[in-house]
Amino acid sequence: MEVGGQHYRTIWFSEDESDTVSIIDQRKLPFRFEIEKLRTVEEAVAAIRDMHVRGAGCVGAAAGYGMFLAAREAAASADFERSLRSSADILLATRPTAVNLQWAVDRQLVAILAEPDNDRRVACARKTAQTIADEDVLACQKIGEHGLELIRRLASEKIDGEVVNILTHCNAGWLAFVDHGSATAPIYAAHGEGIPVHVWVDETRPRNQGARLTAWELEQQGVPYTVIVDNAGGHLMQRGDVDLVITGTDRTTYTGDVANKIGTYLKALAAFDNGVPFYVALPSSTFDWEIADGVKGIPIEERGGEEVVRMEGVADTDSDPQIFHVMGEGTPTANYAFDVTPARLVTKLITERGVCDASKEGVLALYPEKKR
Amino acid sequence: MEVGGQHYRTIWFSEDESDTVSIIDQRKLPFRFEIEKLRTVEEAVAAIRDMHVRGAGCVGAAAGYGMFLAAREAAASADFERSLRSSADILLATRPTAVNLQWAVDRQLVAILAEPDNDRRVACARKTAQTIADEDVLACQKIGEHGLELIRRLASEKIDGEVVNILTHCNAGWLAFVDHGSATAPIYAAHGEGIPVHVWVDETRPRNQGARLTAWELEQQGVPYTVIVDNAGGHLMQRGDVDLVITGTDRTTYTGDVANKIGTYLKALAAFDNGVPFYVALPSSTFDWEIADGVKGIPIEERGGEEVVRMEGVADTDSDPQIFHVMGEGTPTANYAFDVTPARLVTKLITERGVCDASKEGVLALYPEKKR
Repeated sequence: MEVGGQHYRTIWFSEDESDTVSIIDQRKLPFRFEIEKLRTVEEAVAAIRDMHVRGAGCVGAAAGYGMFLAAREAAASADFERSLRSSADILLATRPTAVNLQWAVDRQLVAILAEPDNDRRVACARKTAQTIADEDVLACQKIGEHGLELIRRLASEKIDGEVVNILTHCNAGWLAFVDHGSATAPIYAAHGEGIPVHVWVDETRPRNQGARLTAWELEQQGVPYTVIVDNAGGHLMQRGDVDLVITGTDRTTYTGDVANKIGTYLKALAAFDNGVPFYVALPSSTFDWEIADGVKGIPIEERGGEEVVRMEGVADTDSDPQIFHVMGEGTPTANYAFDVTPARLVTKLITERGVCDASKEGVLALYPEKKR
Repeated sequence: MEVGGQHYRTIWFSEDESDTVSIIDQRKLPFRFEIEKLRTVEEAVAAIRDMHVRGAGCVGAAAGYGMFLAAREAAASADFERSLRSSADILLATRPTAVNLQWAVDRQLVAILAEPDNDRRVACARKTAQTIADEDVLACQKIGEHGLELIRRLASEKIDGEVVNILTHCNAGWLAFVDHGSATAPIYAAHGEGIPVHVWVDETRPRNQGARLTAWELEQQGVPYTVIVDNAGGHLMQRGDVDLVITGTDRTTYTGDVANKIGTYLKALAAFDNGVPFYVALPSSTFDWEIADGVKGIPIEERGGEEVVRMEGVADTDSDPQIFHVMGEGTPTANYAFDVTPARLVTKLITERGVCDASKEGVLALYPEKKR
């Protein structure tokens, strides 16, 4: 998508420095727009673990590119496979909930180790990293097309020119993928074809990805939006000010249970209570084909309490971002990164193959090759 | 309750300066503990409007004390009644949702204007202000006793010594009243008689009254607690980590609909979905005896967007609190201060007269004099 009118992806092979990976350092947004270069697996691991990049698709792509850096380092080591597998394990340990991470690492391992020699292995890793990124872009485009249908339908029920109000939680925008985003793809598509849309952007404590990233994205694309605190969505739905909810997901079971940023479940409950459709957009790489009960089965990452106690902010427009504590230092906290929304609260899933019910039957009808 | 081991109320007649009102300036907590003196109606109005004091009972008491300051100014004016009524109007305009404010101002108006001369009017205003505060303390004590029964019952169902986990939203603690609090009164009572309790404290964006005030209160009283972001409560309930929810309310209809800090509705939905009892504690001064449909009828205050965009924090422990922006300056925002939880989601109301169903029948059984 666009930044200052220029097209960017969230991650790409650097043009000026071959075999180096460039990322947008998302920790600095919206205060600073900075490109970071990743030259080693260690840097890729830090970028994922410390959330320079985040979001399902972007983490998957970063793992793909990380495995290319790993292959290059493996080629320079005494034991290629041992080195590669060790890097894979380190990459896998960075974020426990993101299923795309595992999917990308596994795909690279299989592809790379099928090659006969180190040169071809590195070349394969490079190509696979690029393919994973390109496929992510294509999947998001397709999600946009399918989701656009849903928005178009709601717009057609409105009196001429009335705005379609969409609520979203966290950032499942293009910053969370390689381009377009999942939850935002239908919004960008609708905006692109002139449907008047307005987005309620949940702030998304503790890391404020909504207020910092989604708001920044929408601003750059010229889509009207309003940031609200995470507490406000239910009230807006009661007032009839939300026509639909679209969120992303970090892992969705084949039965339709949705793990997403903490607080998603609360919005799904409010949508259900107010008859507001609740859509979850995802590329199929986000499906978990093993776990049947998401509430019981999906591991939920618990992060450090400093994310709750401290926030990043800017004292005035000219000054650098700085860390503040917004409650008493040493306040006891708990910090669960995700929650699971049961399938019964999800109206439909929007995938690159089309829209389906959030149920085993619905998902397997779109992905028949996964039937066992 | 206690601050550094010494007993305080939130508002009182200054001992060293007759006819001056002292308050704890709650905007500074938890970073600074400061007492502010109110000497004029204008200062009382600013204290309520700018939230030096906040919370249903505390705002009511402050309005009572404010009317005493108004009576003193009226006695020095050419037209007592006109001056007093003008001050009353200004006080009433400070916070539109808080029903205790109107209740206290009206009570003072009736009492003061029944007196035959200015000296007795001022004396009456002083006495009524004190009575309103004392009655608030007594009501909260009674709420504590009735709510304690509910906690005692849950504790008795636990395996020996297991902690009772209570979730609360915003601050309905003693800082929101004159002493004891509404939602916290049963918690302090339970802690006082040795029942092991632990409180999940919702941060409560945008003003963070949970993280800043409730956490500070519980810390001062030695009650174990953990601060969580507003997004987290649903997940904790899904995990079985919440035994009951207790919140306060800014206005409750006689039919049991509960207006409280924005986000309360979302927690009530999650409690209902997980079979967790959801209690609302209130003194009867918080009842609205006129409005039958709270969702449609209760006016919801919309506050300035700077509360969303900017936060107060401390760069390091020695520095003064400072304002910084946590998203792009100029970000479009909406900031609704309250939402309404429909009676169907409320397990019971805890009042100073006892515990009742959140329904017209339940409420009127406790308050038969309100039957019409």
